[in-house]
Amino acid sequence: MNSPSQSLESYLNGRWIRGEGIETQLVDPVSGAELATASAKGVDLSAALDFARKRGQGALRSMSYAARAKLVGAVADVLAANRAKYEAIAIANSGNTKVDAAIDIDGGIGTLKYYARLGAGLGDAKALLDEKPVRLAKAENYQAIHLMVPRKGAAIHINAFNFPSWGLWEKAGVALISGVPVVAKPASATAMLAHEMVRDVVAANILPEGALNLLVGSAGDLLAHVTADDVIAFTGSASTAARVRGDPNVVANSVSVNIEADSINAAVLAPDAAGGGAAFDAFVREVVREITVKAGQKCTAIRRIFVPADKADTIADALAAKLKTTKVGDPRQEDTRMGPLVTRAQQAAAFHGIRALMLEAALVCGGAEPPSLDGIDRETSAFVAPTLLKLDDAGSASAVHEVEVFGPAATIVPYRDEAEAAALVARGGGSLVASLYGEDQKLLARMAADMAPSHGRLLVIDPAVASAHTGHGIVMPQCNHGGPGRAGNGEELGGLYGLRFYHQRLAVQGSTDFLANLQATAASLH
Amino acid sequence: MNSPSQSLESYLNGRWIRGEGIETQLVDPVSGAELATASAKGVDLSAALDFARKRGQGALRSMSYAARAKLVGAVADVLAANRAKYEAIAIANSGNTKVDAAIDIDGGIGTLKYYARLGAGLGDAKALLDEKPVRLAKAENYQAIHLMVPRKGAAIHINAFNFPSWGLWEKAGVALISGVPVVAKPASATAMLAHEMVRDVVAANILPEGALNLLVGSAGDLLAHVTADDVIAFTGSASTAARVRGDPNVVANSVSVNIEADSINAAVLAPDAAGGGAAFDAFVREVVREITVKAGQKCTAIRRIFVPADKADTIADALAAKLKTTKVGDPRQEDTRMGPLVTRAQQAAAFHGIRALMLEAALVCGGAEPPSLDGIDRETSAFVAPTLLKLDDAGSASAVHEVEVFGPAATIVPYRDEAEAAALVARGGGSLVASLYGEDQKLLARMAADMAPSHGRLLVIDPAVASAHTGHGIVMPQCNHGGPGRAGNGEELGGLYGLRFYHQRLAVQGSTDFLANLQATAASLH
Repeated sequence: MNSPSQSLESYLNGRWIRGEGIETQLVDPVSGAELATASAKGVDLSAALDFARKRGQGALRSMSYAARAKLVGAVADVLAANRAKYEAIAIANSGNTKVDAAIDIDGGIGTLKYYARLGAGLGDAKALLDEKPVRLAKAENYQAIHLMVPRKGAAIHINAFNFPSWGLWEKAGVALISGVPVVAKPASATAMLAHEMVRDVVAANILPEGALNLLVGSAGDLLAHVTADDVIAFTGSASTAARVRGDPNVVANSVSVNIEADSINAAVLAPDAAGGGAAFDAFVREVVREITVKAGQKCTAIRRIFVPADKADTIADALAAKLKTTKVGDPRQEDTRMGPLVTRAQQAAAFHGIRALMLEAALVCGGAEPPSLDGIDRETSAFVAPTLLKLDDAGSASAVHEVEVFGPAATIVPYRDEAEAAALVARGGGSLVASLYGEDQKLLARMAADMAPSHGRLLVIDPAVASAHTGHGIVMPQCNHGGPGRAGNGEELGGLYGLRFYHQRLAVQGSTDFLANLQATAASLH
Repeated sequence: MNSPSQSLESYLNGRWIRGEGIETQLVDPVSGAELATASAKGVDLSAALDFARKRGQGALRSMSYAARAKLVGAVADVLAANRAKYEAIAIANSGNTKVDAAIDIDGGIGTLKYYARLGAGLGDAKALLDEKPVRLAKAENYQAIHLMVPRKGAAIHINAFNFPSWGLWEKAGVALISGVPVVAKPASATAMLAHEMVRDVVAANILPEGALNLLVGSAGDLLAHVTADDVIAFTGSASTAARVRGDPNVVANSVSVNIEADSINAAVLAPDAAGGGAAFDAFVREVVREITVKAGQKCTAIRRIFVPADKADTIADALAAKLKTTKVGDPRQEDTRMGPLVTRAQQAAAFHGIRALMLEAALVCGGAEPPSLDGIDRETSAFVAPTLLKLDDAGSASAVHEVEVFGPAATIVPYRDEAEAAALVARGGGSLVASLYGEDQKLLARMAADMAPSHGRLLVIDPAVASAHTGHGIVMPQCNHGGPGRAGNGEELGGLYGLRFYHQRLAVQGSTDFLANLQATAASLH
């Protein structure tokens, strides 16, 4: 790209504005060339939040769920019409292959369409009925129902660099259908895509003023202006998550915070599938895919590969054979299967992590040095080779459960029996997802039950679905996304369940006549 | 009471122990006499949590919901058998009247019995099914369900001084049925009742070792030892709540925290009921009851009384007439209708708050001085007279929405129209509960909808339920308890919904055969 560097703006207070100077340079991670700059320095974020709360809320609140769902569907249509442009941006600014870009872009559009359908099903209602009447006393005409009503503030969405499209829309769609205006802050390094998408949506004039706001640049003092009516949904690192959740103003106002943080997710090959077969093949395919898709930059990616100890070497060979032949390079080339990380800083962090793992684990392939690639400058690009490590003795290792390499790297962890597998998986301290591959359903059920308390999602692969499942790392809008502990203890998506975060749930006690009237005006959640 | 001062102990690590020295003196707030002392200084809380997690969890986890429910029912039976003893303690240590003591003691026993019935209904299951199968792809045999599985840690329950029984058991019952062991810390000032109750339950040898633990004394470094598997439920002041929620270890581990904080709850008399009638009468009864029951020491108590401006004086007179004739004194006397606050410190805080309100509002009755009562020493007792204040102009006042007097005091706030009433109510910044009294159901529905987003519970009184409702301040286990913003943004109780806090919710994706097996072993939540 020889085009001049673009100056990104924020969409706040109903207009496009830019902060002072340059806070961030956005680059092409293949060439290192600057693509754009961003700054929100000096922007009045207090006024911006107020505008969202008053103008955005006012307009959305007066609409029904179905009316808002129609708007969300129209947003999806605008994005779909401009898809080719977004793909080019994703390749340039995120180093995505076309497959990577599709996960991000089509994932975002698909989630919007899914929620548009769900919202349409809620019809003309402006509140949700969560629980039908329950008796509270001897008198039959005095009862209670539980309602959910949209919160009155703004939704602050702080998104991660790896999914500038999906992260934006999976959050925004749910908030908008719930009647809550959005102030979205994409990660600066890859904000070009979110910026372009919001530009198109704003230009299409679909949403009421104040419903969709974009902050491009640093968050500044944003959290200091949050009120008890607002909610915050954050995706990113555990350390930044802790700063958000522990922010004194957030704590003082009991602001609802949903955190989705990176975690050390596991794939577990059950003992009965280790010798081969459909489940074994699915396991190998899935591990290789999770290491290489988006160059491993998915919060859901497999980082720990649990296998029966006596098969660890054979499996390491099988995985390494596939990883070594994965074509790494410029995603603009048709045969490239894996591109670079998004920045040199991410590359350096990944190498740092790989080196930490190498203190405990043997390197099977890849490593902590930039790979030599045809026509690519190692000094300016951000590539990491597909990297596999292997522990000999899981008992004494700790880094494998604690150090996340946010790139194309994973570690084989041998286990001796079911009980040890469950105990080792739990040492991740809480994960977004784990996948489990086996043949015998009773064994799978036992292993799934052991793993359940430390996960937000489990994918269980038996031969019947070995080639029909949706993948370990792909977040389906029908399913819960989020996990306990290290993963941030959040809950996103999961169909209508996802709307809860943007609603206040309350009991209404009163006469059966009164409650019948209220109930008739609310859409049922079940 | 001329009995010697009792030395309270903690029940941790399966035995009764006491810390060094004296951290707190527990007194009779009528006489000021010392009843007991408490200390947990130097107690190893890390080991105590570990014991709960390992021994308590291990035992509870292997049981079904119904089996645990049976234990909870047995706990209720032990408490019911010792009720008379508890009433005497509540009168002595909390200054409760018999009615006050019944709310605390019978409320606790009743909530245990309610949850024992609910838990029995969940049968032999060890997990809960939250959502039935949903399709994720074209292949019909690949779907997802949502399960809830008990968390693996301990439940840390930090309770408030005003409900030493109810606060303990409403939390413990839900946790135990969920399979999560309890470490309960009652507020030291009134811990005698919780101490005696747990002594009886431990002596009855009902629960597995480690399932129920009691920390009497200061919390020390308890929060520093909490892990991602644990949960914390707190009831008390907003300032202590912020310390719990913002604790660095709690934040770093993404520990689930449920907060139920005091709030500035409202009673609202609708314009159409201001002239009299069944709803008006219910309003007067309820306001007087909320000011005087437990001497106003309920987190749900009415603090702001919203009335149509043109009726404010008449209503003030009607309320004052009843408050002035409320017999205040030693709760051991049969004709006493209201006792003291629990301590001199609480009395001082209440007077401080009343003085802050008096800067904006006129005093109708009561005040910020200890009342003169027959046979009671003003210098050692903790009495506050039933106190009513009245604003002339609600528009310019702010303290009434911000200052909580945790005692027998409330302020009349005049409003001009529906819209102003809703806006003024919301200035409380989020409340546990509001009650609304009127005749016309459409008007009530409109006003309820306006108030809903800032409340966790609404009680709507029309003439049909004017004498049949369960009360503004009484927390029914069937209904949500908690409120947004200032109220802490928590959710407790609410029937089976309350179990969610003690479970990890997760999506399980797999073959329809596999999911059918899993589903068959889980109890349905709906």
